[in-house]
Parts: sequence; structure tokens; C-alpha cells
Amino acid sequence: MTTVANELLTKAQAARGATRELARLSTDAKNRAIELIALALESQQGSVLEANRQDYEAARQDGMSEALLDRLLLTSERLTAQAADVRKVAGLPDPVGESFDAQTLPNGLRIARRRVPLGVIGTIYESRPNVTVDISVLCLKSGNVALLRGGKEAIRSNAALAGLVRGALAKAGVTPEAVQLVESTDRALVDQMLTLSQYIDLLIPRGGPALVKLVAERATMPVVTGGIGVCHTFIDASANIERAVAIAYNAKVQRPTVCNALDTLLVHAKVAPEVLPKVALAWAEAGVEMHCDHRALSILGPSHGTAVVPATEDDWGKEFLSLVAAVAVVDSFDEALEHIHKYGSGHSEAILTEDYSAAMRFLDEVDAAAVFVNASTRFTDGAQFGLGAEVAISTNKLHARGPMGLRELTSYKWIIMGDGQVRE
Amino acid sequence: MTTVANELLTKAQAARGATRELARLSTDAKNRAIELIALALESQQGSVLEANRQDYEAARQDGMSEALLDRLLLTSERLTAQAADVRKVAGLPDPVGESFDAQTLPNGLRIARRRVPLGVIGTIYESRPNVTVDISVLCLKSGNVALLRGGKEAIRSNAALAGLVRGALAKAGVTPEAVQLVESTDRALVDQMLTLSQYIDLLIPRGGPALVKLVAERATMPVVTGGIGVCHTFIDASANIERAVAIAYNAKVQRPTVCNALDTLLVHAKVAPEVLPKVALAWAEAGVEMHCDHRALSILGPSHGTAVVPATEDDWGKEFLSLVAAVAVVDSFDEALEHIHKYGSGHSEAILTEDYSAAMRFLDEVDAAAVFVNASTRFTDGAQFGLGAEVAISTNKLHARGPMGLRELTSYKWIIMGDGQVRE
Repeated sequence: MTTVANELLTKAQAARGATRELARLSTDAKNRAIELIALALESQQGSVLEANRQDYEAARQDGMSEALLDRLLLTSERLTAQAADVRKVAGLPDPVGESFDAQTLPNGLRIARRRVPLGVIGTIYESRPNVTVDISVLCLKSGNVALLRGGKEAIRSNAALAGLVRGALAKAGVTPEAVQLVESTDRALVDQMLTLSQYIDLLIPRGGPALVKLVAERATMPVVTGGIGVCHTFIDASANIERAVAIAYNAKVQRPTVCNALDTLLVHAKVAPEVLPKVALAWAEAGVEMHCDHRALSILGPSHGTAVVPATEDDWGKEFLSLVAAVAVVDSFDEALEHIHKYGSGHSEAILTEDYSAAMRFLDEVDAAAVFVNASTRFTDGAQFGLGAEVAISTNKLHARGPMGLRELTSYKWIIMGDGQVRE
Repeated sequence: MTTVANELLTKAQAARGATRELARLSTDAKNRAIELIALALESQQGSVLEANRQDYEAARQDGMSEALLDRLLLTSERLTAQAADVRKVAGLPDPVGESFDAQTLPNGLRIARRRVPLGVIGTIYESRPNVTVDISVLCLKSGNVALLRGGKEAIRSNAALAGLVRGALAKAGVTPEAVQLVESTDRALVDQMLTLSQYIDLLIPRGGPALVKLVAERATMPVVTGGIGVCHTFIDASANIERAVAIAYNAKVQRPTVCNALDTLLVHAKVAPEVLPKVALAWAEAGVEMHCDHRALSILGPSHGTAVVPATEDDWGKEFLSLVAAVAVVDSFDEALEHIHKYGSGHSEAILTEDYSAAMRFLDEVDAAAVFVNASTRFTDGAQFGLGAEVAISTNKLHARGPMGLRELTSYKWIIMGDGQVRE
């Protein structure tokens, strides 16, 4: 432990030390604190905006791309919008204390499972400073302590936001130790954080595939693996063509940079000659580049110009995160299923079909966090699924799968109330 | 991967390859196979008993203790009793396919979470050959593939039992690849198994603390950490003395070698002079040795002879697994709580009290898999808790906590049925 930077270790210990107080907070106390955080975001913007201006200038001089600069930027409007999001969390049900599977056993023992916080949630994230507030508030509502490690490029903004959150906690009578931001930006701290299984109950990496992979491979504590979605949409022989085109368009185009966007379109050979040109036409208007197998290519022909190119083996199973889609024609439902089994990442998969048996088989046999019939994979999202908020999208099978809301940040304990029972 | 023994790798791959068939098996098909396994245990005992005789003789010549020899021994009666246990699993509800949180969203999407098997469950276990059948049957019922690695001392018995199970599977029309027993007893195989995260979804170590610790520290896949219980029972100032003595007796004596047995007895100072001599008297009859703090010692005095000795610092937080208990007198509820917080292993903790507020606070504030009021910690058990069967007792907070039954061997997927919905 001597190699772990002092700041990290001190804050990890402070986080662990705050877990018991956090676990006991009433819903009212948590909601009052959340409201004060929202108020602070509206009324104490000066220091945050000034810190963000410094981060932004430094990043610009370092040559950060416009897209990343935009993610880094905070404005008064953005802070006010975030305050509104924070208030929504106050309105969500508190998962802590929920009981389930309650029963009275034949011997009279009253037994139930009761939800409890996990403890300390560690988060390693990149340029967006709003994650600092998001995770703090979701952890607070679920009774967990947040140990945050943001990116170097947003460190001043993160520190100002964490200070604002901690100030609001103190004002609400909640220990400010509930939110810990590690301010050292030494890259080695990430590696050191991965060894702190004694202090961190669950680690959530929020960032690109390199970060997720590093954390998944090296962390000594449980990790939410997710955020990587190789998503297929299969247009079956019986699909409603008009709807299929609209869904394929939505899944690819509505927000191509996210994990639940379409990556590979599979089309049944029976309808490919009709549906592929329609999809190509719709996608061409949005600037989608199609990487086609030879059968799709022969249907679409050369007339579509540079937007239609031959696929390479690398295109199958690739997460494009851009206006690019791989396209293949398949001869059967089973061929589509095998393709998805071989190349999918277990995130979100869809079939578009009017065939009842095909729909049922797809739901049964595709092994992914979210399996859709006749809808866009873009719906895989905590808010869209009715969870109210989302900490991450998990492609783990253990604990929580798919969008993780507040409840997914809890464990449970067994509560057993007796009147003298002993075991025979 | 070149260092992984060929047998292990081949069987791990075969296990992975069988997961899709297992996930799709109907409850009827699984129950038929389970019935055939039970029948085989009753009607094909010869080869199993002969293999067990060889293991037993070899172990005896190696100087194995009587207690371990008894765990290794199979008899016709034991096999017939196991057949009855196997049949009980056929009678348990099938968790696979259960839906929960089903709802229709405002946009018309019908959404639910549906339980699915985890995939491949790896188990590393020690001398008891009955684990081979137990885990095989529980995995089968939950749609999982079992990859088993038993101890060297039981290898012939395990191989005979796995052969019997696989034969029954084949007869039932279920792929025998659903149960894989690694027959090489090379010690290095355990280390190699811990690296196979690509093939094993969850690893369950069933054995002593050394095995559990090794697996928890080194495994690259999720692990059920459990089986280690440092269990406290706190006799509060308001406890019903007669019941408290009976519960303390049961928790320590009824089966002292298991993880949910009492390790430390905490007694409120107000009732210690009355209750401690009664507990000591009851325990003395059963041969319990009491390791007492100085206050308990001064109450009990020297009259109890060698059964009452001074505690050392090592006694607090120790899992005795024998007829030994640590005993301390505390001045308050809070002191008991702090003791449990400091020394407990998060397994099973009990308060004996007639004070409503003390009972509620204990349930709220003790962080353990199972928290009891006025009952023996010996109840922490899958069958006792109404789960029907138990794969392990988890002290993890992620995924499953406490006794793990069939449902705890599943994950879930989100099922979304639409009629053309796209995201706006």
C-alpha cells in the first residue's frame, strides 16, 4: 500500500468511513440534500464556470478536438439543465429499504430480503464534468458513497463541482465525505485505484473502450463492464418494410456515436431486393456509409457511389460509433441468429418481423442485455426503460444487466425475525 | 493459453459450446433428466461404490483423518438418500424464463426482464464426492453447464458419479456435455482454471478458507466468496434469558463445524451476571470451551475449570468451526454493534432482545448477509430460508448475498416488444 498515493488512500478510507452514515440516511434527508445540490448548481455558478473556462482554454491550447471541447464545456444553461436533472433524482423512488420475497416460514420465522447500499462506488471517467454531479447524486440517492476520479482535462471543473456538491451536503446535514474527488491527475492513480478492493465495492469505468478494457482486466474489485455495443438489426422475410426502413434509419442515424446505435444490418434474402434499396436511400440522405457483403453489394449495385463499399472481415462485430453500417444478406433466420451469436457483444439486438414464431425464437435464443422485436435498439437506456436514471449500461451477466438505475446500485440483506427459534 | 492443460481447455470449450442448448431446455426436459439421474443413483450403484472403495482405501493409507474419511465415504444408503435430494430439485420451480418488472411503457413498448442462465458455472471443491451430483443437478435445473474440478482424493468417485450423470443426460436426450468433470488431478489445473474467464461465467469454490482465498484473489472471472462466517450473537439487556440460553446453545452446539455456527457471544453487562453462568452450564455439558474477556471471566470465576479460559486478541473475529466460543461483556447496544462491525465477516449476526427499538436498529445497522432477531444463526441456509436448495452461501454484495438457490444462478435479459417504435 506504500505505493498508493496518499491522497487516493486518504480519500478511499474517508469514503469507506462514510458508508454507515450514508446507509442510514432517510429518504427525506437524501432528497433534501439533492435539492440543495440542485439549488447550488443554479445559484453558485460563478466559480464552476470560471474553473471550466480555465480547463477549456488549456484544452484548446493543447489542441483538443471541437467534439471533445464541446463535451468539456459548461455554460450557465447547461448547469441549470443539470440542476433540473438532479431534481428528477429526488423524485425517483428510494431503493434502499425496499423489501422483497417476504414470507413467514412454517417454523414462524418472518424472513425477507431488504435492499441496502453497496457501499463505495468508484468511478473513473473522462472529459465530461457533468459526470461528477450525476454520479454523486445517484450514489447519494442509493445510499452509496462516491469515490470519483475524473480526467485531467476537466480537473478544475470537477473540483469546483465536487466542492459545490460537498458544500450542499454539509448544508443539508449530510457528511460531505459522501463525495470524494481525487484531485491528483497522475496517470498512475488509475492503476492504484484498481487495487483498492478493500475500500471500493463496485467500480464503474465511464469512458472509451481502452479505459473499460483496462479496468475490466486489472481491477481487483467487481466492475461494471459495458458501454461497448455491437448492435445488430435483422430484417426478417416477413418484416413490415416501411416500419423496417424507419427503424433501421432511427437505429443508425438518430445518434450514431452511442453504444446502442445500429452497427450491422442483416436482411433476409427474400426481402433484400425490396428493402435494401429503400434503406440505402434513407441512409444516403443522412450520409451513412454502407459496408456491404457481396450479396448486398450486388443488390445495391454501383449506382449508390461511394456510400456503398465492400465490407471487409473487420466490419463484422465492429462498433462503428459513426455513420457507418455493415450490411449482410442472410438466407434464413438461423443464419441471422448465428451471425449475431458470433459477432454480437451482448448489448442490444433487434428483429423486425411479423412472424410470431420468429419473434418468439429471437427473444428466446439471442443472448444479449436487451433483445427487441420491432423497435429501434436506441431504446436501450435507463430513462427509456423506465428506470428514471442510469449509471451505466452493463453487459455483465452477474448482478445487473443492461441499463443500471438506482436499484442496481444496491445489494440486499436477509432479515429474519423470530421468537426463539432454534434449528433442529 | 498454451500452458493450460489440454483436458481442461477441451472441457471448458465443450462446456461453453453446450450453453445454448442448456438455456433452451424446457422445464419438462430438465425434470425428466433429473429423474433419470435419481434413478441411476439408485440402480447403478455398483461402479460408484467400487470407485469410492478405491478412493477410500487410498486415502486411508495416506493417513486421512476419520472425519475426512467419513466425508469421502459413499454407501448404498447415502447414494439412495442423494437420489431423494436430486428428486427434490425436480420439484423446485424453474427460475429460467421467469419474467419480472413487466410493464407497458407510455410509447407502447412492452418491456420485461426475463431470467436466463448464467452460462458455465465452474466449481472447485474438495473431498465430498456428493458435490459432483449436487452441483450438476442444480446447474441443470437452472439451465447452466457445470464445469467441475474435484479433489484428488475423490477422483475415482467423482469420475464414476459424473459418468453416471452424463449417462442419464444422454438417456434423457440432453447433451452430456452439460456436465464436465476435469479428471486430471494436477494441482496446477486450479490455477489454470482461474484464468479461463472466456469460458467460465461464475466460479464457486467449495472448500476451506485457503481455497476460497486463493480463488477470490486470483480468479479472472466473477467468484462467489463465501463460506467463511464469523458469527456473533448479542444477548441484549432485555433478552428473554431462557430463550437466549437455548439460542446460544443451538447456535454453538447443534453443528459447530459449519460457517453459520456461533463464534462470539456478546452479553450486555446488565444481564451478564445472570445469563453467563447459565450459558456456561449448558455449553459445559456439550464440551464447549469459552475464551472469555476479563469481565466475562470475573463473572464466571475459576469454578468452571478448563472450559473457561482468558481470551486473546486473536479470538475476536475468529471462525472456530469447533466447540470453542469467544465471550465478551459489553456495556451497551452500541458497543456490541461496534464489535460486530469491527470483527464480523458479514455472514450471520443475531441479537436476542425484547426491546423493539434495539431489534429494529440491529436489523437496520448490522451489515451482513443475514441479520437475525431472536433466532439461531444456524438458520442461514438455502433450504431453511425456503430456497429449496443451496449452491453456496455468498458474503459478496454483488449479484447474490447469503444462501444462493437456483434463482441466484441466473442472470436476466431485457425483452422489448414493439410495433415500430423509434426513438425521438
